[in-house]
Amino acid sequence: MTFNQIVHQIHSKQSFLCVGLDPDRSLFPLHLQAKPDAIYLFNKEIIDATSPYAIAYKPNTAFYEAEGASGWQQLTQTIRYIRQYHPNILIIADAKRCDIGNTAHRYAKAFYQELNVDAVTLSPYMGMDAIDPFLSYKDKWSIVLAITSNDTASDFALQPLTNGKPLYQAVIQKCVSKGSKEQLMFVVGATRPQLLAEVRAMVPEHFLLVPGVGAQGGGVAEVAKYGMNRDCGLLVNVSRDIIYAGNGLDFAQTAGKKAEEIAQEMGRLLAATQFSI
Amino acid sequence: MTFNQIVHQIHSKQSFLCVGLDPDRSLFPLHLQAKPDAIYLFNKEIIDATSPYAIAYKPNTAFYEAEGASGWQQLTQTIRYIRQYHPNILIIADAKRCDIGNTAHRYAKAFYQELNVDAVTLSPYMGMDAIDPFLSYKDKWSIVLAITSNDTASDFALQPLTNGKPLYQAVIQKCVSKGSKEQLMFVVGATRPQLLAEVRAMVPEHFLLVPGVGAQGGGVAEVAKYGMNRDCGLLVNVSRDIIYAGNGLDFAQTAGKKAEEIAQEMGRLLAATQFSI
Repeated sequence: MTFNQIVHQIHSKQSFLCVGLDPDRSLFPLHLQAKPDAIYLFNKEIIDATSPYAIAYKPNTAFYEAEGASGWQQLTQTIRYIRQYHPNILIIADAKRCDIGNTAHRYAKAFYQELNVDAVTLSPYMGMDAIDPFLSYKDKWSIVLAITSNDTASDFALQPLTNGKPLYQAVIQKCVSKGSKEQLMFVVGATRPQLLAEVRAMVPEHFLLVPGVGAQGGGVAEVAKYGMNRDCGLLVNVSRDIIYAGNGLDFAQTAGKKAEEIAQEMGRLLAATQFSI
Repeated sequence: MTFNQIVHQIHSKQSFLCVGLDPDRSLFPLHLQAKPDAIYLFNKEIIDATSPYAIAYKPNTAFYEAEGASGWQQLTQTIRYIRQYHPNILIIADAKRCDIGNTAHRYAKAFYQELNVDAVTLSPYMGMDAIDPFLSYKDKWSIVLAITSNDTASDFALQPLTNGKPLYQAVIQKCVSKGSKEQLMFVVGATRPQLLAEVRAMVPEHFLLVPGVGAQGGGVAEVAKYGMNRDCGLLVNVSRDIIYAGNGLDFAQTAGKKAEEIAQEMGRLLAATQFSI
């Protein structure tokens, strides 16, 4: 999915919502919990209900791996389902993979070819060797961790290097020297909105994937204030607040309503900036 | 597997070899290549042939994920096979996972419970939130990336922070404040042996997992010189040089011979230090 296709979707849906598909069987509605393919069944309903408002879906691999090979199979089925019935929606594997050379190429194959997602999140600790193999897929997206939404992002990512600038800025700088706005995004947590502005100043044109809205405490309006650019340039992720909004037979309908609410706020924020294509 | 059990194995096998199980179907012997469960069949033979010399097996998840759900299934089978027939050998999932809170707990469940490995490698970019959930399993191992064997480890991990000390030292310092030598190891690449000495000075008692010997250029003797302590304290990983030593019908026997050669050198190095338990 290209940059322009993403911007077009944002325009037509008046939303920049990414729905996190983090399936936790223990939080599913009772009628699904015991089914062997509960994850897939849950995801299908959530996807159909939220698709009018979603620009992207972001399955987090941890939640699938926790169910072993069956979990990986249901991740595969989920991605196929989105591809088949909602082909305009970006699919991000939130995998935060981190490995080099030969191994990074294998991960790229696993995600871009086998699973056939559009984008994968990457952890930069090992340097550009861990990013370059993904950037070599020009028609896919690499989404590199810059500032995450958790408290201990301050342990390392926010630590200043000897030039006085924090590690995350070195990460961004290295990455933008290799990847254009057509293939590279950054993760910037919603919980530190002022830092969003600093990242936006460094990468005025790249998309930012913003977790940490909702359950983790960040607000959409603040994210838009500090991070939006003329292409919108934001994908704001919400997971639990949407997918576990209800847990009855009508859980998907409730999730859809919650997604709609959030998208309405996003639409107002987009309107206020006179975003157009 | 406890610290003392690992040291005991090193003593009885006179080896500190970790065999990397990075199965690449295109490098398999012809008679295996087309079989649907080729990875599992390949691993089984490699494991049986190398088990007299191996203290640990280290499957790298990328190589399994590249084959989708079937790859994950064969990873599961491989781990079960080691557990059943070689229960004294440590199993390390080289997964370099990196996520926080709820999600990190899911990864810990995926690896420690579902897959039932002893250890998992972790990338520290997101801070201690990404490590603590693994350390909460007191009978399992967390192996945190410090200095990796690739060139671009210098991009970030070797960069000095404002106190003049490189990032990897901050990582080690934070981690040892949370994890004892009974549950925490560090990855330190063999390609920078002098830095091994610096890490050893910081963590005199922790085990170090050392990749980068063989195909990547590091030597076992140098690693021992700079990294060995009175418990040995090293697990030196060799992957391709062993598992692809041959590619005929006798590939496993050839792999076994290569592992034996490496273990013999390790035995001499251990003897030279009068390592005993």
